[in-house]
Amino acid sequence: MVEFFIGIDIGGTNVKIGCFDSDLKLIAKTSITTGAGMGAVVVVGNIAEAVHSLLAKAGLSIDGVCAVGLGTPGPAKYGEGIILSSTNMPKFRNVPIRRMLSKKLGKPVMFDNDANVACWGEYVAGAGKEVEDMVFFTLGTGIGGAIVNHGKLLTGCDDNATELGHIIIYPDGRRCNCGQRGCVEVYASASWTAQRATEAVEADAKSSLKEVLEENGEITCKDVYEHLAKGDELAKRITDETAKALAILCINMLHTTEPSRIVFAGGMIAAGDALLDRIKHYFDEGIWTLKKESVEICFAALGEDAGIIGAAALAKQAKQQGKIA
Amino acid sequence: MVEFFIGIDIGGTNVKIGCFDSDLKLIAKTSITTGAGMGAVVVVGNIAEAVHSLLAKAGLSIDGVCAVGLGTPGPAKYGEGIILSSTNMPKFRNVPIRRMLSKKLGKPVMFDNDANVACWGEYVAGAGKEVEDMVFFTLGTGIGGAIVNHGKLLTGCDDNATELGHIIIYPDGRRCNCGQRGCVEVYASASWTAQRATEAVEADAKSSLKEVLEENGEITCKDVYEHLAKGDELAKRITDETAKALAILCINMLHTTEPSRIVFAGGMIAAGDALLDRIKHYFDEGIWTLKKESVEICFAALGEDAGIIGAAALAKQAKQQGKIA
Repeated sequence: MVEFFIGIDIGGTNVKIGCFDSDLKLIAKTSITTGAGMGAVVVVGNIAEAVHSLLAKAGLSIDGVCAVGLGTPGPAKYGEGIILSSTNMPKFRNVPIRRMLSKKLGKPVMFDNDANVACWGEYVAGAGKEVEDMVFFTLGTGIGGAIVNHGKLLTGCDDNATELGHIIIYPDGRRCNCGQRGCVEVYASASWTAQRATEAVEADAKSSLKEVLEENGEITCKDVYEHLAKGDELAKRITDETAKALAILCINMLHTTEPSRIVFAGGMIAAGDALLDRIKHYFDEGIWTLKKESVEICFAALGEDAGIIGAAALAKQAKQQGKIA
Repeated sequence: MVEFFIGIDIGGTNVKIGCFDSDLKLIAKTSITTGAGMGAVVVVGNIAEAVHSLLAKAGLSIDGVCAVGLGTPGPAKYGEGIILSSTNMPKFRNVPIRRMLSKKLGKPVMFDNDANVACWGEYVAGAGKEVEDMVFFTLGTGIGGAIVNHGKLLTGCDDNATELGHIIIYPDGRRCNCGQRGCVEVYASASWTAQRATEAVEADAKSSLKEVLEENGEITCKDVYEHLAKGDELAKRITDETAKALAILCINMLHTTEPSRIVFAGGMIAAGDALLDRIKHYFDEGIWTLKKESVEICFAALGEDAGIIGAAALAKQAKQQGKIA
C-alpha cells in the first residue's frame, strides 16, 4: 500500500497541515484558523476534520496515513505529549495533545517543539540540506531556536533545550518577558524591533517612522525595514542593533556546538540582504582571530512550509525507528 | 591477560600520567616536567620513558596496556591526531602527536582536548557521576569547556566545539586575547581575575591588595580570594563580577544544551563556597521565571586527576567501540 505522512504545525493564529508521500514530497496542504479560544477539544476536532477533508480532496484515504507529525510552541513536555501552557493559547494548559490527536485520527503521532520541527524541515529539505551540523533561529514575536548536531536534533535533560532566544547577551540590558535581563530576543525579535523603534520615536528621535506612529498608532517591524530601505537613520540604527545581537548569538553558538551553517527563519527575514549582510558584517567584526571560521550564515529556504515538512519528516523517522507505534 | 589503560594529560608545565585497571581504578601515577621548549620529539620520548618507568615500578609490563588516552590543549585537529599550535608550547606546531606517541609505545592512542578529557573524568568518576547531561568549565589561565549530552561528549562540525570560555557576555566589553570583546574568560578566568584586581589597585581603588602589589610586584588570583576572606571590599567587588559572569554563562548553557549539572573545575575553585555561593546567587537572580530550574551547580571532585582518569576512560571506550586499533 502507498504510504503517506501528515505534518501539522499549530501556531497561535493558524494551523498548517500538509500531506506528504513517502519521499516527503508535498501532495496537498491546507491551513485553518487555530481558534485556540475554543479550547483544546474543539481545536483537535477541527484539525482532524481538516486532515480528512485534505485527504479527500487529494483522493486519498486516512488508511494510507502511516504517521502524523505535530509541532507546537512550548513550554511542553514533548516526551509525554503534553502542552503545559502557551502565551498565545491561554486555554491550553496541561493538554495531552498527542494522545488526543492520535485517538481522533487513529494514527501514531510524533510531537515536538515548533522551532525543532521547522528546523528539521529546513535540515532535510531546505537551507540545511548539505550539512550535518546546523543552528536554526526563527525571528518572530519571540526568537525560537533549534540545533542539529551530527544529523540529530539536540535535546537536553528535560524538554527545554535550545531556548536560544533567551541566551543573555547584555546582562544589564532590557528586561525580557521571561524575567531575564538582556536576552537576545529583546534586541532581535520582530516584536522587539518594532518596540524599540516605537520607544525611540516616542523619545523624539528624528525619523520618518514618526508619521507612521501618528497615522497608524503603532510601528511594526515591517515598517522599520521599509523605512530602512528609504534610508531612515533611526531604522538603520535599530537594524544595526538587531544585526549585532544576532551576530553575537552566532558567535556564541559557534563556540558551543560548532555548526557549519546557521539559518535564520521567520517573518523578519523578509528584510532580506539589508539584514543578512549586516549580521555577517558584525559576525566578521566580532569573531575571534585564533582561527579562520568558515561557518555559513544564511536565510531559510522553505518559508511557511518548513514546519509541516519537518513534522512529516520527524513522523517518518520516528515510525522507521520504531519510536511511535 | 589482565588489561590496563594509560591516561596522559599534557599541560604547558607538567605531563601527568596514570595507569588504570580495566575498572578504571588508579594503580599508579606520576608527573614529569613537560619541557615543551625541547620540542615534540624529546617530549614524546620523555613521556614514553615515564610510562615504562611507571609500569615497572608497579610491577606491570607494557604488554598488558590495552590502549592509551591522551589529552592536550588545542587548537588541534583531534580527529587527525595533530596539535596545530599551543600558546604554552610554542615549539608545538603541526605535531602529529597521536602517531608519534602510538609508534613510541606500540599501542593505540585516543586523542582529545584537555577540557574534554577532564570533563569525561568528572563525568565517569567524579562530580558528574549520577547525571547524563553535564556542562563542565575549567577556570585556569583561560576558561576551558566541555559538554556531555545524553552521555556523550558533544563535538561539532570540526574540532573546535565547546570553546565555552569565548562565549561573549559583554559585547562591548574588555578585549580578550582571542581577538573578541567581552568573552566570559576576560571576566572569570584566574589570570583575568588577577589582572582586573591589579588594574583596580593601580587605578587607586582602596584595598588591602595594594600592599600585595607593592611587596610582590603582582597580585595573583589566590591573593584576591585570600583578601576576600579577610573582608576586602575590592576583592569582594572583583569576585562578584567573576561570579556574575559565570552565572550568566550557566544560564546561557541551560538554554542551549539543558544540562542537569554544571561543574566548575580548575585552580580557581580553591576559592570554595565564597565563589560557589556567589555564582548560585547570581544564577538565581538572573534566571528566567517561566519555569523553575533544577540544574545543580557544583565544583569538580577529582582535582588534578580528572584528566588522566578521563583520558584512560576515553581510551577504554574507544577500544571497546573499535574506534582505535
